[in-house]
Amino acid sequence: MNSLKEISKILEGKLEGDPDFKIKVVNSLDNAGPDEIAIAVKPEMITEKINAGALVVKENSSIRYKNLIYVEDPYIALSTLISHFLPLERFSHGIGEFVSVAASASIGTDSSIGDHSYIGEKVEIGKNCEIHSGVRIYNNVKIGDNALIYSNVVIREDVVIGNSVVIQPGAVIGSDGFGFARDKTGKPLKIPQRGNVIIGDNCEIGANVCIDRSTLDSTQICDSVKIDNLVQIGHNVKVGESTSISAQSGISGSTEVGKNVIMAGQVGLADHIKVGDGVMIAAKTGISGNVKDKSIVAGIPQQELMSWKRSQVILRNIEKYIERIKILEKKIGETEKK
Amino acid sequence: MNSLKEISKILEGKLEGDPDFKIKVVNSLDNAGPDEIAIAVKPEMITEKINAGALVVKENSSIRYKNLIYVEDPYIALSTLISHFLPLERFSHGIGEFVSVAASASIGTDSSIGDHSYIGEKVEIGKNCEIHSGVRIYNNVKIGDNALIYSNVVIREDVVIGNSVVIQPGAVIGSDGFGFARDKTGKPLKIPQRGNVIIGDNCEIGANVCIDRSTLDSTQICDSVKIDNLVQIGHNVKVGESTSISAQSGISGSTEVGKNVIMAGQVGLADHIKVGDGVMIAAKTGISGNVKDKSIVAGIPQQELMSWKRSQVILRNIEKYIERIKILEKKIGETEKK
Amino acid sequence: MNSLKEISKILEGKLEGDPDFKIKVVNSLDNAGPDEIAIAVKPEMITEKINAGALVVKENSSIRYKNLIYVEDPYIALSTLISHFLPLERFSHGIGEFVSVAASASIGTDSSIGDHSYIGEKVEIGKNCEIHSGVRIYNNVKIGDNALIYSNVVIREDVVIGNSVVIQPGAVIGSDGFGFARDKTGKPLKIPQRGNVIIGDNCEIGANVCIDRSTLDSTQICDSVKIDNLVQIGHNVKVGESTSISAQSGISGSTEVGKNVIMAGQVGLADHIKVGDGVMIAAKTGISGNVKDKSIVAGIPQQELMSWKRSQVILRNIEKYIERIKILEKKIGETEKK
Repeated sequence: MNSLKEISKILEGKLEGDPDFKIKVVNSLDNAGPDEIAIAVKPEMITEKINAGALVVKENSSIRYKNLIYVEDPYIALSTLISHFLPLERFSHGIGEFVSVAASASIGTDSSIGDHSYIGEKVEIGKNCEIHSGVRIYNNVKIGDNALIYSNVVIREDVVIGNSVVIQPGAVIGSDGFGFARDKTGKPLKIPQRGNVIIGDNCEIGANVCIDRSTLDSTQICDSVKIDNLVQIGHNVKVGESTSISAQSGISGSTEVGKNVIMAGQVGLADHIKVGDGVMIAAKTGISGNVKDKSIVAGIPQQELMSWKRSQVILRNIEKYIERIKILEKKIGETEKK
Repeated sequence: MNSLKEISKILEGKLEGDPDFKIKVVNSLDNAGPDEIAIAVKPEMITEKINAGALVVKENSSIRYKNLIYVEDPYIALSTLISHFLPLERFSHGIGEFVSVAASASIGTDSSIGDHSYIGEKVEIGKNCEIHSGVRIYNNVKIGDNALIYSNVVIREDVVIGNSVVIQPGAVIGSDGFGFARDKTGKPLKIPQRGNVIIGDNCEIGANVCIDRSTLDSTQICDSVKIDNLVQIGHNVKVGESTSISAQSGISGSTEVGKNVIMAGQVGLADHIKVGDGVMIAAKTGISGNVKDKSIVAGIPQQELMSWKRSQVILRNIEKYIERIKILEKKIGETEKK
Repeated sequence: MNSLKEISKILEGKLEGDPDFKIKVVNSLDNAGPDEIAIAVKPEMITEKINAGALVVKENSSIRYKNLIYVEDPYIALSTLISHFLPLERFSHGIGEFVSVAASASIGTDSSIGDHSYIGEKVEIGKNCEIHSGVRIYNNVKIGDNALIYSNVVIREDVVIGNSVVIQPGAVIGSDGFGFARDKTGKPLKIPQRGNVIIGDNCEIGANVCIDRSTLDSTQICDSVKIDNLVQIGHNVKVGESTSISAQSGISGSTEVGKNVIMAGQVGLADHIKVGDGVMIAAKTGISGNVKDKSIVAGIPQQELMSWKRSQVILRNIEKYIERIKILEKKIGETEKK
């Protein structure tokens, strides 16, 4: 239980209402009860059904309610409130049951290894890490401090992971890149993949994501990159700082993605191209060539979003335009007869 | 071995042929031998190569054959025959080797836990469940009766699963939703995801599927929903009863999909939209806004299927139409000269 | 350390430079040091920053450098050099810790089973195989010689795998096909999937790939097929010899893909169609019908690549064409007035 005064202080917000009103927990706007606080982003969300004890709103919001906390950014406030009221329980402590840890592996203080996990030779795991159950960490992997690695993640040999990285269940880091020559008879011949993957600090890797190791160098995921579920990152790719990649997107080999790029879902990037900083990519876009900094793109292949939208409007009405061509042809025919 | 009379009774069908003819097993139409039964859907499938002892056909079928069983729905008959002749063997019995089961977990009668599986604190598993090898079930998960959970599935904390649910290998239920605020410097800041996933009765979840937990409420998969491999379900999504989602499709956060929707493969749904009941969605469709009940849609963004098809025919001939514009321009030019 | 003379012999190349020059390892062109060799494909890649001790180039290359080895195919040379200088270390030897192997399973000489793996009844594993940690092999699976199966792979019952097959982490082989009838009330009713998957020799299966078992027959992956990460192969599919399938592509049920097909990323194939031999499919293509041998296709639905490209150029300029229609209409209007 916290008073609104306390919560307002935590959120660096401005309180309007009863400072002594007690809040038990944060909840969603629809489900928050009389002793719960919720975030409200748009005035039209405030209906008669809303039953929360207090609301957090943006500082210039027109929302009126019994207890309000005005904040600069409600989403940051949401993050703060959930961390405060609903902290994540530790999965386990120490070394679990049926664990294989190589003698040459080193595990930092306050780090835990869940049941049935495998830690290979010369693996280095930093302080305060949580490795859950069924995780497979191959030889020579290095992981920084505060890692949170969920069950059944596989991290292959020589991968390097920074501090405070979260990896959701089932992700595979360091699988072989998809590189094949064709032999004289036309059969595919594997090009062995002996590079690695380097992941920076504060990254999040989604469930069942695949990040391929480089052929000889490193596939690079820079600091604060956030990758959603089922994303594919090819070999020798570089993803710049703070870029966000939504579910089921894929980046082909040797492509470089800039900083602060926002990629929506099911996007595909061709190989050996460069996508600039601050680019925004609409869902299902297929990018076949370089993209300049701060572009907003959509389509297969990509074009500037506004131009793509105008084309889409025309395409939806293309039958009418064809009709107009036919009318013109008829009229011209008649004119010619005269 | 069953007589055709017996099989006909099981299928609630009408037999034409030898009631005492013995059948060993069901097989595919191409491979069924003289003591085997197969399903035949179209007359053109019946060639000289067909060697089955008997055929199951639709009640008004024009197929002629030595032994025939007429049924209302041959696909239901196929399901019945495979279940009858080729029942699934139980994976294991009781608690396997190298299993971790928390003392506070409860496991119903006739349920089995496969080798190397992990069952967390306060997990409740119903009766007659099969949990295979390498499954990870986090704390407070509840699973109903008759579950069939294949190897290496991960079910994260607080997930609730109904009765008679099948989960194929490698699926991840309850991974964190992809929710980030941006801090004052523009870096992504995680919004912790503390909701859960609720899965109804008779659902099937495909291999390597990901279903994200909600931020604060529940991601909901209603009764009889069938989800194919590599599908992504975002946080706070609701999927209505008996909806079927084909492989590699993705549903973005907070989107609501109605009942009896049929989604083909590689479909993408934007976030915060509503797709009505009975909607049919063609493969590779990108849905960016609400879709009315019973619509049939295709395209990126979606449009009504028939309109999309007509547009596609025009687009395939667009060069010819452009040629016609050029001819018109030439003619107009000539007319103007006169 | 090898002399250039020795390396040239291994590569069956022609040396231009110092035959006694010693090379320590192969590296990427950008990172190779003075005692390292690299592959150079294009002359424009040779900048002042290149510091390699020697370069491998194509036999008619115009590249000039201190030490050069001319070869027929630089990519084959790369494969040879990496295998020579950077051989893959064996994951483990013998049977690991916490392993479950059924008494009726047979494991060939020099094959190893990694920690926490599960080997079911009557499984047959050939000679010189490496099964890594956390692998789940169900009953009656047969695997040939020289298999390399990475961690957390799941292979379901009755699957047959040839010689020298590589399976990257997290792949699922033999999951149930997505087959449902609808019962009288419209609810989906599972058609049990009791066929299997047959994988030929020299295949590679990517990370988190899913290959569904057939309903009653076999899903077939022929010799030398290479499948990238997160690919979906539906039930009853046949993929022909030496075909290559890039990441996140999907093939729907009962579709047949020919030999030597090259499929780029995020491609989708409808069910029950035939794609001929030697077909090339551009990224994100959606194939809805049969495709003839040696076609090159793109688009949703697919069309011949060149025709698709011409259409794309027109579509990008569609606004201008619409403008030209409007001008024509105005002119015709004026002509008619006269």
